[in-house]
Amino acid sequence: MAKPYDIRMSNAGIDELHTTTVIDEQGNPRDIAITGERPLTIYLDKQEIVTLMTLGTHPELLTIGYLRNQQLIDAPEDIISVQVDWEVNAAAVTTRNPDRDFSNLTAKRTVTSGCGQGTMFSHVIDSLDSLRVQCPPFSAATIYNILNQLRDYNEVYKQAGAVHGCALCNKDNIHLFIEDVGRHNAVDAIAGWMWVNHITGNDKIFYTTGRLTSEMVIKVAQMHIPLLLSRSGVTEMGLTLAKQTRIGMVARAKGRHFLVFSGKEQFIPQ
Amino acid sequence: MAKPYDIRMSNAGIDELHTTTVIDEQGNPRDIAITGERPLTIYLDKQEIVTLMTLGTHPELLTIGYLRNQQLIDAPEDIISVQVDWEVNAAAVTTRNPDRDFSNLTAKRTVTSGCGQGTMFSHVIDSLDSLRVQCPPFSAATIYNILNQLRDYNEVYKQAGAVHGCALCNKDNIHLFIEDVGRHNAVDAIAGWMWVNHITGNDKIFYTTGRLTSEMVIKVAQMHIPLLLSRSGVTEMGLTLAKQTRIGMVARAKGRHFLVFSGKEQFIPQ
Repeated sequence: MAKPYDIRMSNAGIDELHTTTVIDEQGNPRDIAITGERPLTIYLDKQEIVTLMTLGTHPELLTIGYLRNQQLIDAPEDIISVQVDWEVNAAAVTTRNPDRDFSNLTAKRTVTSGCGQGTMFSHVIDSLDSLRVQCPPFSAATIYNILNQLRDYNEVYKQAGAVHGCALCNKDNIHLFIEDVGRHNAVDAIAGWMWVNHITGNDKIFYTTGRLTSEMVIKVAQMHIPLLLSRSGVTEMGLTLAKQTRIGMVARAKGRHFLVFSGKEQFIPQ
Repeated sequence: MAKPYDIRMSNAGIDELHTTTVIDEQGNPRDIAITGERPLTIYLDKQEIVTLMTLGTHPELLTIGYLRNQQLIDAPEDIISVQVDWEVNAAAVTTRNPDRDFSNLTAKRTVTSGCGQGTMFSHVIDSLDSLRVQCPPFSAATIYNILNQLRDYNEVYKQAGAVHGCALCNKDNIHLFIEDVGRHNAVDAIAGWMWVNHITGNDKIFYTTGRLTSEMVIKVAQMHIPLLLSRSGVTEMGLTLAKQTRIGMVARAKGRHFLVFSGKEQFIPQ
Protein backbone atom coordinates (compact mmCIF):
# COMPACT_ATOMS: atom_id res chain seq x y z
CA MET A 1 0.00 0.00 0.00
CA ALA A 2 1.44 3.37 -1.03
CA LYS A 3 2.21 5.93 1.63
CA PRO A 4 -0.80 8.14 2.43
CA TYR A 5 -0.76 11.67 1.09
CA ASP A 6 0.95 14.12 3.41
CA ILE A 7 -2.08 16.04 4.65
CA ARG A 8 -1.97 17.73 8.07
CA MET A 9 -5.13 16.47 9.68
CA SER A 10 -6.60 17.02 13.10
CA ASN A 11 -7.79 13.90 14.88
CA ALA A 12 -11.07 15.24 16.15
CA GLY A 13 -13.21 12.13 15.75
CA ILE A 14 -15.67 11.76 18.59
CA ASP A 15 -17.18 8.50 19.58
CA GLU A 16 -19.40 9.40 22.43
CA LEU A 17 -22.96 8.37 22.89
CA HIS A 18 -25.29 10.53 24.91
CA THR A 19 -27.50 9.31 27.68
CA THR A 20 -30.98 10.56 28.33
CA THR A 21 -33.76 9.64 30.70
CA VAL A 22 -36.98 8.52 29.07
CA ILE A 23 -40.12 6.97 30.45
CA ASP A 24 -41.51 3.74 29.08
CA GLU A 25 -45.11 2.93 28.18
CA GLN A 26 -45.89 2.14 31.82
CA GLY A 27 -44.49 5.41 33.07
CA ASN A 28 -41.25 4.00 34.45
CA PRO A 29 -38.10 6.09 33.99
CA ARG A 30 -35.17 4.50 32.18
CA ASP A 31 -31.72 5.74 31.12
CA ILE A 32 -30.89 4.97 27.51
CA ALA A 33 -28.15 5.78 25.01
CA ILE A 34 -28.93 8.07 22.08
CA THR A 35 -26.91 8.91 19.01
CA GLY A 36 -24.99 12.17 18.82
CA GLU A 37 -25.72 14.47 15.89
CA ARG A 38 -23.94 17.75 15.31
CA PRO A 39 -23.39 20.26 12.55
CA LEU A 40 -20.01 20.44 10.80
CA THR A 41 -19.48 23.46 8.56
CA ILE A 42 -16.81 22.99 5.89
CA TYR A 43 -14.65 25.99 4.96
CA LEU A 44 -12.50 25.51 1.86
CA ASP A 45 -9.69 28.09 1.81
CA LYS A 46 -11.81 30.23 4.15
CA GLN A 47 -14.93 30.05 1.98
CA GLU A 48 -18.01 28.44 3.53
CA ILE A 49 -19.12 25.45 1.47
CA VAL A 50 -21.75 23.44 3.36
CA THR A 51 -22.92 22.32 6.78
CA LEU A 52 -23.33 18.57 7.24
CA MET A 53 -25.15 16.94 10.13
CA THR A 54 -22.89 14.16 11.35
CA LEU A 55 -22.25 11.71 14.15
CA GLY A 56 -18.71 13.07 14.15
CA THR A 57 -16.57 9.95 14.29
CA HIS A 58 -14.50 10.73 11.14
CA PRO A 59 -14.92 14.45 10.45
CA GLU A 60 -11.63 14.86 8.52
CA LEU A 61 -12.33 11.95 6.15
CA LEU A 62 -15.93 13.07 5.78
CA THR A 63 -14.74 16.55 4.81
CA ILE A 64 -12.25 15.24 2.24
CA GLY A 65 -14.70 12.72 0.79
CA TYR A 66 -17.44 15.33 0.55
CA LEU A 67 -15.17 17.77 -1.30
CA ARG A 68 -14.00 14.97 -3.58
CA ASN A 69 -17.48 13.74 -4.43
CA GLN A 70 -18.70 17.29 -5.03
CA GLN A 71 -15.64 17.73 -7.30
CA LEU A 72 -14.51 20.80 -5.37
CA ILE A 73 -11.00 19.36 -5.03
CA ASP A 74 -9.34 17.63 -7.96
CA ALA A 75 -6.60 15.59 -6.28
CA PRO A 76 -5.59 14.69 -2.71
CA GLU A 77 -2.13 16.24 -3.23
CA ASP A 78 -3.84 19.62 -3.54
CA ILE A 79 -4.84 19.46 0.14
CA ILE A 80 -2.44 20.97 2.69
CA SER A 81 -4.48 20.53 5.85
CA VAL A 82 -7.86 19.64 7.31
CA GLN A 83 -8.44 20.98 10.83
CA VAL A 84 -11.66 20.19 12.66
CA ASP A 85 -12.61 22.24 15.71
CA TRP A 86 -15.76 21.18 17.53
CA GLU A 87 -15.71 24.37 19.63
CA VAL A 88 -17.06 26.09 16.53
CA ASN A 89 -18.31 22.97 14.66
CA ALA A 90 -16.04 23.77 11.73
CA ALA A 91 -13.67 21.95 9.38
CA ALA A 92 -11.08 24.30 7.84
CA VAL A 93 -9.45 22.99 4.68
CA THR A 94 -6.44 24.69 3.11
CA THR A 95 -5.25 23.82 -0.39
CA ARG A 96 -2.38 24.67 -2.69
CA ASN A 97 -4.78 26.76 -4.83
CA PRO A 98 -6.18 29.21 -2.27
CA ASP A 99 -7.22 31.76 -4.87
CA ARG A 100 -10.03 29.80 -6.43
CA ASP A 101 -13.35 31.56 -6.06
CA PHE A 102 -15.93 29.04 -4.91
CA SER A 103 -18.88 31.38 -5.13
CA ASN A 104 -19.07 30.43 -8.81
CA LEU A 105 -18.30 26.80 -8.21
CA THR A 106 -20.88 26.51 -5.50
CA ALA A 107 -23.49 28.37 -7.53
CA LYS A 108 -22.90 25.84 -10.26
CA ARG A 109 -22.83 23.07 -7.71
CA THR A 110 -26.16 23.98 -6.31
CA VAL A 111 -27.72 24.10 -9.72
CA THR A 112 -26.53 20.52 -9.97
CA SER A 113 -27.34 19.15 -6.55
CA GLY A 114 -30.01 21.36 -5.06
CA CYS A 115 -31.94 22.54 -8.05
CA GLY A 116 -30.97 20.28 -10.88
CA GLN A 117 -30.65 16.80 -9.53
CA GLY A 118 -32.34 15.88 -12.75
CA THR A 119 -29.46 17.35 -14.67
CA MET A 120 -26.95 15.55 -12.50
CA PHE A 121 -28.98 12.46 -12.92
CA SER A 122 -29.05 12.65 -16.73
CA HIS A 123 -25.31 13.29 -16.70
CA VAL A 124 -24.73 10.23 -14.61
CA ILE A 125 -27.02 8.14 -16.77
CA ASP A 126 -25.12 9.42 -19.82
CA SER A 127 -21.81 8.55 -18.22
CA LEU A 128 -22.85 5.16 -16.90
CA ASP A 129 -20.88 3.39 -19.60
CA SER A 130 -17.69 5.00 -18.33
CA LEU A 131 -18.57 3.82 -14.82
CA ARG A 132 -19.06 0.25 -15.90
CA VAL A 133 -17.28 -2.29 -13.72
CA GLN A 134 -17.28 -6.07 -13.87
CA CYS A 135 -18.75 -7.98 -10.98
CA PRO A 136 -16.25 -10.74 -10.15
CA PRO A 137 -17.25 -14.31 -9.26
CA PHE A 138 -18.30 -14.41 -5.61
CA SER A 139 -19.33 -17.25 -3.34
CA ALA A 140 -21.83 -17.66 -0.54
CA ALA A 141 -18.82 -18.33 1.71
CA THR A 142 -17.45 -14.85 0.95
CA ILE A 143 -20.77 -13.21 1.81
CA TYR A 144 -21.09 -15.19 5.05
CA ASN A 145 -17.50 -14.35 5.96
CA ILE A 146 -18.15 -10.61 5.59
CA LEU A 147 -21.46 -10.78 7.46
CA ASN A 148 -19.77 -12.67 10.30
CA GLN A 149 -16.97 -10.15 10.59
CA LEU A 150 -19.43 -7.24 10.51
CA ARG A 151 -21.04 -8.54 13.72
CA ASP A 152 -18.21 -6.96 15.67
CA TYR A 153 -18.97 -3.53 14.23
CA ASN A 154 -22.21 -1.53 14.27
CA GLU A 155 -21.43 -0.46 17.81
CA VAL A 156 -23.37 2.80 17.84
CA TYR A 157 -26.31 1.14 16.14
CA LYS A 158 -26.39 -1.65 18.70
CA GLN A 159 -26.42 0.79 21.59
CA ALA A 160 -28.46 3.69 20.31
CA GLY A 161 -29.87 2.95 16.84
CA ALA A 162 -30.54 5.90 14.52
CA VAL A 163 -27.40 5.47 12.41
CA HIS A 164 -26.43 3.74 9.20
CA GLY A 165 -23.21 1.80 8.80
CA CYS A 166 -21.09 1.40 5.67
CA ALA A 167 -18.04 -0.81 5.26
CA LEU A 168 -15.29 -1.19 2.70
CA CYS A 169 -14.27 -4.84 2.50
CA ASN A 170 -12.39 -7.27 0.33
CA LYS A 171 -13.32 -10.92 0.25
CA ASP A 172 -11.30 -11.67 3.39
CA ASN A 173 -11.41 -8.55 5.56
CA ILE A 174 -13.23 -5.42 6.62
CA HIS A 175 -10.92 -2.50 5.77
CA LEU A 176 -13.02 0.24 7.29
CA PHE A 177 -16.41 0.50 8.94
CA ILE A 178 -18.06 3.90 9.44
CA GLU A 179 -21.37 4.78 11.03
CA ASP A 180 -23.14 8.10 10.64
CA VAL A 181 -26.57 9.64 11.00
CA GLY A 182 -26.72 9.88 7.20
CA ARG A 183 -25.47 7.04 5.06
CA HIS A 184 -24.30 9.62 2.50
CA ASN A 185 -21.86 10.86 5.10
CA ALA A 186 -20.64 7.34 5.75
CA VAL A 187 -20.09 6.77 2.01
CA ASP A 188 -18.33 10.13 1.66
CA ALA A 189 -16.03 9.38 4.59
CA ILE A 190 -15.07 6.04 3.06
CA ALA A 191 -14.43 7.77 -0.29
CA GLY A 192 -12.19 10.25 1.56
CA TRP A 193 -10.24 7.44 3.20
CA MET A 194 -9.76 5.66 -0.13
CA TRP A 195 -8.54 8.85 -1.77
CA VAL A 196 -6.02 9.77 0.93
CA ASN A 197 -4.67 6.22 1.11
CA HIS A 198 -4.47 5.44 -2.64
CA ILE A 199 -7.06 2.69 -2.28
CA THR A 200 -8.71 1.51 -5.49
CA GLY A 201 -12.22 0.09 -5.54
CA ASN A 202 -12.01 -2.55 -8.24
CA ASP A 203 -11.18 -5.44 -5.88
CA LYS A 204 -13.46 -4.31 -3.06
CA ILE A 205 -16.92 -5.09 -1.73
CA PHE A 206 -19.08 -2.30 -0.33
CA TYR A 207 -21.47 -3.08 2.53
CA THR A 208 -24.24 -0.86 3.86
CA THR A 209 -27.02 -1.27 6.36
CA GLY A 210 -29.09 1.09 4.21
CA ARG A 211 -31.35 0.61 1.22
CA LEU A 212 -29.94 0.35 -2.29
CA THR A 213 -31.57 3.25 -4.08
CA SER A 214 -30.35 4.79 -7.35
CA GLU A 215 -28.17 7.24 -5.44
CA MET A 216 -26.33 4.54 -3.48
CA VAL A 217 -25.61 2.53 -6.62
CA ILE A 218 -24.31 5.61 -8.44
CA LYS A 219 -22.00 6.48 -5.54
CA VAL A 220 -20.59 2.95 -5.43
CA ALA A 221 -20.14 2.96 -9.21
CA GLN A 222 -18.24 6.24 -8.93
CA MET A 223 -15.92 4.50 -6.44
CA HIS A 224 -15.37 1.70 -9.05
CA ILE A 225 -16.48 -0.98 -6.60
CA PRO A 226 -17.98 -3.99 -8.42
CA LEU A 227 -19.91 -5.72 -5.60
CA LEU A 228 -22.52 -4.18 -3.30
CA LEU A 229 -23.97 -5.84 -0.21
CA SER A 230 -26.86 -4.53 1.90
CA ARG A 231 -28.83 -5.60 4.94
CA SER A 232 -31.86 -3.79 3.48
CA GLY A 233 -33.86 -3.97 0.27
CA VAL A 234 -33.45 -2.46 -3.18
CA THR A 235 -35.48 -0.15 -5.38
CA GLU A 236 -36.26 -0.85 -8.99
CA MET A 237 -34.05 1.98 -10.24
CA GLY A 238 -31.20 0.91 -7.97
CA LEU A 239 -31.42 -2.53 -9.55
CA THR A 240 -31.63 -1.15 -13.09
CA LEU A 241 -28.50 0.95 -12.55
CA ALA A 242 -26.65 -1.97 -10.97
CA LYS A 243 -27.40 -4.12 -14.00
CA GLN A 244 -26.37 -1.33 -16.37
CA THR A 245 -23.05 -0.74 -14.59
CA ARG A 246 -22.58 -4.51 -14.05
CA ILE A 247 -22.33 -4.13 -10.29
CA GLY A 248 -23.18 -7.30 -8.41
CA MET A 249 -25.96 -6.54 -5.94
CA VAL A 250 -26.70 -8.70 -2.90
CA ALA A 251 -29.41 -7.45 -0.57
CA ARG A 252 -31.53 -8.49 2.41
CA ALA A 253 -28.31 -9.97 3.76
CA LYS A 254 -28.78 -10.85 7.41
CA GLY A 255 -27.87 -13.90 9.42
CA ARG A 256 -27.79 -16.92 7.10
CA HIS A 257 -29.91 -15.43 4.35
CA PHE A 258 -29.37 -13.12 1.40
CA LEU A 259 -30.71 -12.57 -2.10
CA VAL A 260 -28.66 -11.95 -5.25
CA PHE A 261 -30.33 -9.25 -7.35
CA SER A 262 -27.70 -8.69 -10.04
CA GLY A 263 -24.51 -10.49 -10.98
CA LYS A 264 -26.46 -13.74 -10.61
CA GLU A 265 -24.32 -15.51 -13.18
CA GLN A 266 -21.22 -14.72 -11.09
CA PHE A 267 -22.64 -16.20 -7.90
CA ILE A 268 -21.27 -19.49 -6.61
CA PRO A 269 -23.63 -21.11 -4.08
CA GLN A 270 -22.00 -23.41 -1.60
CA MET B 1 -63.53 21.05 6.91
CA ALA B 2 -63.25 23.92 4.41
CA LYS B 3 -63.55 23.18 0.73
CA PRO B 4 -60.17 22.31 -0.82
CA TYR B 5 -58.56 24.96 -2.97
CA ASP B 6 -59.63 24.81 -6.58
CA ILE B 7 -56.46 23.47 -8.16
CA ARG B 8 -56.64 21.49 -11.40
CA MET B 9 -54.65 18.39 -10.55
CA SER B 10 -53.90 15.29 -12.53
CA ASN B 11 -54.43 12.01 -10.71
CA ALA B 12 -51.24 10.31 -11.77
CA GLY B 13 -50.43 8.45 -8.56
CA ILE B 14 -49.01 5.02 -9.25
CA ASP B 15 -49.13 2.22 -6.80
CA GLU B 16 -47.44 -0.56 -8.59
CA LEU B 17 -44.72 -2.77 -7.21
CA HIS B 18 -42.26 -4.35 -9.55
CA THR B 19 -41.36 -8.01 -9.59
CA THR B 20 -37.89 -9.34 -10.19
CA THR B 21 -36.28 -12.74 -10.12
CA VAL B 22 -33.47 -13.14 -7.62
CA ILE B 23 -31.55 -16.16 -6.42
CA ASP B 24 -31.27 -16.99 -2.77
CA GLU B 25 -28.15 -18.00 -0.82
CA GLN B 26 -28.53 -21.59 -1.96
CA GLY B 27 -28.80 -20.64 -5.63
CA ASN B 28 -32.57 -21.13 -5.91
CA PRO B 29 -34.48 -18.63 -8.06
CA ARG B 30 -37.32 -16.70 -6.44
CA ASP B 31 -39.70 -13.98 -7.64
CA ILE B 32 -39.96 -11.06 -5.24
CA ALA B 33 -41.56 -7.63 -5.14
CA ILE B 34 -39.33 -4.55 -5.24
CA THR B 35 -40.13 -0.91 -4.69
CA GLY B 36 -40.54 1.39 -7.66
CA GLU B 37 -38.37 4.50 -7.80
CA ARG B 38 -38.57 7.09 -10.53
CA PRO B 39 -37.49 10.65 -11.19
CA LEU B 40 -40.05 13.46 -11.13
CA THR B 41 -38.86 16.80 -12.48
CA ILE B 42 -40.84 19.79 -11.24
CA TYR B 43 -41.41 22.69 -13.65
CA LEU B 44 -42.84 25.83 -12.05
CA ASP B 45 -44.34 28.09 -14.72
CA LYS B 46 -42.13 26.30 -17.27
CA GLN B 47 -38.92 26.77 -15.26
CA GLU B 48 -37.14 23.61 -14.11
CA ILE B 49 -36.85 23.55 -10.32
CA VAL B 50 -35.70 20.13 -9.15
CA THR B 51 -35.83 16.41 -9.82
CA LEU B 52 -37.01 14.24 -6.95
CA MET B 53 -36.66 10.47 -6.79
CA THR B 54 -40.03 9.14 -5.70
CA LEU B 55 -42.17 6.05 -5.37
CA GLY B 56 -44.80 8.01 -7.25
CA THR B 57 -47.97 7.38 -5.26
CA HIS B 58 -48.83 11.07 -4.64
CA PRO B 59 -46.87 13.09 -7.21
CA GLU B 60 -49.21 16.11 -7.22
CA LEU B 61 -49.20 16.51 -3.41
CA LEU B 62 -45.46 15.89 -3.32
CA THR B 63 -44.97 18.66 -5.88
CA ILE B 64 -47.15 21.13 -3.98
CA GLY B 65 -45.60 20.26 -0.61
CA TYR B 66 -42.08 20.52 -1.99
CA LEU B 67 -42.77 23.97 -3.47
CA ARG B 68 -44.40 25.05 -0.22
CA ASN B 69 -41.57 23.85 1.99
CA GLN B 70 -38.98 25.42 -0.30
CA GLN B 71 -41.05 28.61 -0.08
CA LEU B 72 -41.30 28.85 -3.87
CA ILE B 73 -45.06 29.30 -3.65
CA ASP B 74 -46.58 31.56 -1.03
CA ALA B 75 -50.19 30.39 -0.88
CA PRO B 76 -52.22 27.50 -2.31
CA GLU B 77 -54.60 29.93 -4.04
CA ASP B 78 -51.69 30.99 -6.25
CA ILE B 79 -51.67 27.54 -7.89
CA ILE B 80 -53.79 27.08 -11.02
CA SER B 81 -52.82 23.53 -11.93
CA VAL B 82 -50.46 20.64 -11.26
CA GLN B 83 -50.18 18.16 -14.11
CA VAL B 84 -48.01 15.07 -13.77
CA ASP B 85 -47.04 13.13 -16.88
CA TRP B 86 -45.03 9.95 -16.30
CA GLU B 87 -44.28 9.66 -20.04
CA VAL B 88 -41.74 12.41 -19.46
CA ASN B 89 -41.43 12.09 -15.64
CA ALA B 90 -42.51 15.69 -15.21
CA ALA B 91 -44.82 17.72 -12.99
CA ALA B 92 -45.89 21.00 -14.63
CA VAL B 93 -47.17 23.63 -12.21
CA THR B 94 -48.85 26.80 -13.39
CA THR B 95 -49.49 29.73 -11.05
CA ARG B 96 -51.22 33.09 -11.13
CA ASN B 97 -47.79 34.79 -11.13
CA PRO B 98 -46.14 33.25 -14.19
CA ASP B 99 -43.65 36.06 -14.63
CA ARG B 100 -41.56 35.39 -11.56
CA ASP B 101 -37.98 34.56 -12.45
CA PHE B 102 -36.92 31.53 -10.46
CA SER B 103 -33.31 31.57 -11.61
CA ASN B 104 -32.68 34.04 -8.78
CA LEU B 105 -34.91 32.27 -6.34
CA THR B 106 -33.36 28.93 -7.07
CA ALA B 107 -29.84 30.32 -6.91
CA LYS B 108 -30.73 31.63 -3.49
CA ARG B 109 -32.47 28.40 -2.69
CA THR B 110 -29.46 26.34 -3.50
CA VAL B 111 -27.26 28.56 -1.40
CA THR B 112 -29.64 27.65 1.39
CA SER B 113 -30.17 23.96 0.82
CA GLY B 114 -27.24 22.72 -1.20
CA CYS B 115 -24.41 24.93 -0.11
CA GLY B 116 -25.58 26.65 3.01
CA GLN B 117 -27.50 24.14 5.04
CA GLY B 118 -25.65 25.76 7.91
CA THR B 119 -27.29 29.06 7.11
CA MET B 120 -30.69 27.49 6.88
CA PHE B 121 -29.96 25.70 10.08
CA SER B 122 -29.00 28.87 11.96
CA HIS B 123 -32.11 30.58 10.62
CA VAL B 124 -34.26 27.80 11.86
CA ILE B 125 -32.54 27.75 15.23
CA ASP B 126 -33.05 31.50 15.43
CA SER B 127 -36.72 31.12 14.60
CA LEU B 128 -37.37 28.16 16.86
CA ASP B 129 -39.22 30.34 19.34
CA SER B 130 -41.73 31.24 16.66
CA LEU B 131 -42.17 27.53 15.90
CA ARG B 132 -42.89 26.66 19.49
CA VAL B 133 -45.94 24.48 20.00
CA GLN B 134 -47.38 22.95 23.15
CA CYS B 135 -47.43 19.19 23.46
CA PRO B 136 -50.93 18.29 24.70
CA PRO B 137 -51.60 15.63 27.35
CA PHE B 138 -51.49 12.21 25.69
CA SER B 139 -52.17 8.74 26.99
CA ALA B 140 -50.70 5.31 26.35
CA ALA B 141 -54.14 4.36 25.03
CA THR B 142 -53.85 7.02 22.30
CA ILE B 143 -50.45 5.76 21.23
CA TYR B 144 -51.64 2.14 21.15
CA ASN B 145 -54.71 3.16 19.19
CA ILE B 146 -52.60 4.83 16.50
CA LEU B 147 -50.12 1.97 16.34
CA ASN B 148 -52.98 -0.51 15.97
CA GLN B 149 -54.57 1.44 13.16
CA LEU B 150 -51.24 1.81 11.37
CA ARG B 151 -50.98 -1.96 11.05
CA ASP B 152 -53.34 -1.78 8.10
CA TYR B 153 -51.03 0.59 6.25
CA ASN B 154 -47.36 0.19 5.32
CA GLU B 155 -48.42 -1.91 2.36
CA VAL B 156 -45.42 -1.26 0.12
CA TYR B 157 -43.05 -1.75 3.03
CA LYS B 158 -44.61 -5.07 3.93
CA GLN B 159 -44.28 -6.36 0.39
CA ALA B 160 -41.03 -4.84 -0.81
CA GLY B 161 -39.30 -2.90 1.95
CA ALA B 162 -37.08 0.00 0.96
CA VAL B 163 -39.60 2.75 1.77
CA HIS B 164 -40.42 4.96 4.72
CA GLY B 165 -43.95 5.69 5.80
CA CYS B 166 -45.34 8.87 7.34
CA ALA B 167 -48.83 9.42 8.69
CA LEU B 168 -50.89 12.39 9.79
CA CYS B 169 -53.17 11.37 12.65
CA ASN B 170 -55.33 12.80 15.35
CA LYS B 171 -55.88 10.90 18.56
CA ASP B 172 -58.66 8.80 17.05
CA ASN B 173 -57.84 8.38 13.37
CA ILE B 174 -55.24 8.17 10.65
CA HIS B 175 -55.99 11.02 8.23
CA LEU B 176 -53.37 10.18 5.64
CA PHE B 177 -50.58 7.63 5.27
CA ILE B 178 -47.91 8.09 2.61
CA GLU B 179 -44.94 5.89 1.77
CA ASP B 180 -42.00 6.98 -0.32
CA VAL B 181 -38.40 6.02 -1.02
CA GLY B 182 -37.33 9.16 0.87
CA ARG B 183 -39.10 10.13 4.06
CA HIS B 184 -38.59 13.79 3.09
CA ASN B 185 -40.86 13.18 0.13
CA ALA B 186 -43.47 11.57 2.38
CA VAL B 187 -43.36 14.58 4.73
CA ASP B 188 -43.56 17.01 1.82
CA ALA B 189 -46.54 15.19 0.33
CA ILE B 190 -48.36 15.35 3.67
CA ALA B 191 -47.52 19.07 3.94
CA GLY B 192 -48.98 19.52 0.43
CA TRP B 193 -52.16 17.71 1.40
CA MET B 194 -52.56 19.83 4.54
CA TRP B 195 -52.05 23.01 2.56
CA VAL B 196 -54.54 22.20 -0.20
CA ASN B 197 -57.18 21.04 2.28
CA HIS B 198 -56.83 23.83 4.90
CA ILE B 199 -55.66 21.35 7.52
CA THR B 200 -53.94 22.79 10.58
CA GLY B 201 -51.33 20.85 12.52
CA ASN B 202 -51.96 21.97 16.09
CA ASP B 203 -54.34 19.11 16.99
CA LYS B 204 -52.47 16.43 15.04
CA ILE B 205 -49.97 13.67 15.71
CA PHE B 206 -47.25 12.91 13.15
CA TYR B 207 -46.04 9.33 12.76
CA THR B 208 -43.00 8.14 10.84
CA THR B 209 -41.22 4.85 10.44
CA GLY B 210 -37.96 6.80 10.14
CA ARG B 211 -35.49 8.16 12.66
CA LEU B 212 -36.09 11.44 14.45
CA THR B 213 -33.11 13.54 13.41
CA SER B 214 -32.89 17.32 13.66
CA GLU B 215 -34.31 17.70 10.16
CA MET B 216 -37.43 15.65 10.89
CA VAL B 217 -38.17 17.59 14.07
CA ILE B 218 -37.75 20.91 12.25
CA LYS B 219 -40.12 19.84 9.47
CA VAL B 220 -42.76 18.76 11.98
CA ALA B 221 -42.34 22.01 13.92
CA GLN B 222 -42.84 23.93 10.67
CA MET B 223 -46.12 22.06 10.24
CA HIS B 224 -47.12 23.17 13.81
CA ILE B 225 -47.70 19.58 14.91
CA PRO B 226 -47.12 19.16 18.67
CA LEU B 227 -46.69 15.36 18.97
CA LEU B 228 -44.26 13.16 17.04
CA LEU B 229 -44.27 9.37 17.03
CA SER B 230 -41.65 7.11 15.47
CA ARG B 231 -40.97 3.43 15.12
CA SER B 232 -37.22 4.21 15.10
CA GLY B 233 -34.80 5.97 17.42
CA VAL B 234 -33.83 9.58 17.97
CA THR B 235 -30.64 11.59 17.73
CA GLU B 236 -29.44 13.89 20.43
CA MET B 237 -30.03 17.01 18.33
CA GLY B 238 -33.50 15.80 17.35
CA LEU B 239 -34.28 15.50 21.03
CA THR B 240 -32.79 18.90 21.87
CA LEU B 241 -34.89 20.60 19.18
CA ALA B 242 -38.03 18.75 20.30
CA LYS B 243 -37.53 19.99 23.86
CA GLN B 244 -36.84 23.51 22.62
CA THR B 245 -39.99 23.63 20.47
CA ARG B 246 -41.98 21.71 23.13
CA ILE B 247 -42.88 18.93 20.74
CA GLY B 248 -43.74 15.69 22.48
CA MET B 249 -41.52 12.95 21.14
CA VAL B 250 -42.36 9.25 21.43
CA ALA B 251 -39.95 6.85 19.74
CA ARG B 252 -39.11 3.14 19.42
CA ALA B 253 -42.85 2.67 19.20
CA LYS B 254 -43.57 -0.85 18.05
CA GLY B 255 -46.01 -3.48 19.25
CA ARG B 256 -46.73 -2.89 22.94
CA HIS B 257 -43.66 -0.81 23.65
CA PHE B 258 -42.62 2.80 23.26
CA LEU B 259 -40.44 5.35 25.00
CA VAL B 260 -41.35 8.97 25.76
CA PHE B 261 -38.34 11.22 25.06
CA SER B 262 -39.89 14.65 25.48
CA GLY B 263 -43.22 15.87 26.77
CA LYS B 264 -42.84 13.39 29.63
CA GLU B 265 -44.88 15.55 31.99
CA GLN B 266 -47.79 15.39 29.53
CA PHE B 267 -47.81 11.61 29.32
CA ILE B 268 -50.59 9.66 30.99
CA PRO B 269 -49.66 5.98 31.47
CA GLN B 270 -52.56 3.59 31.64
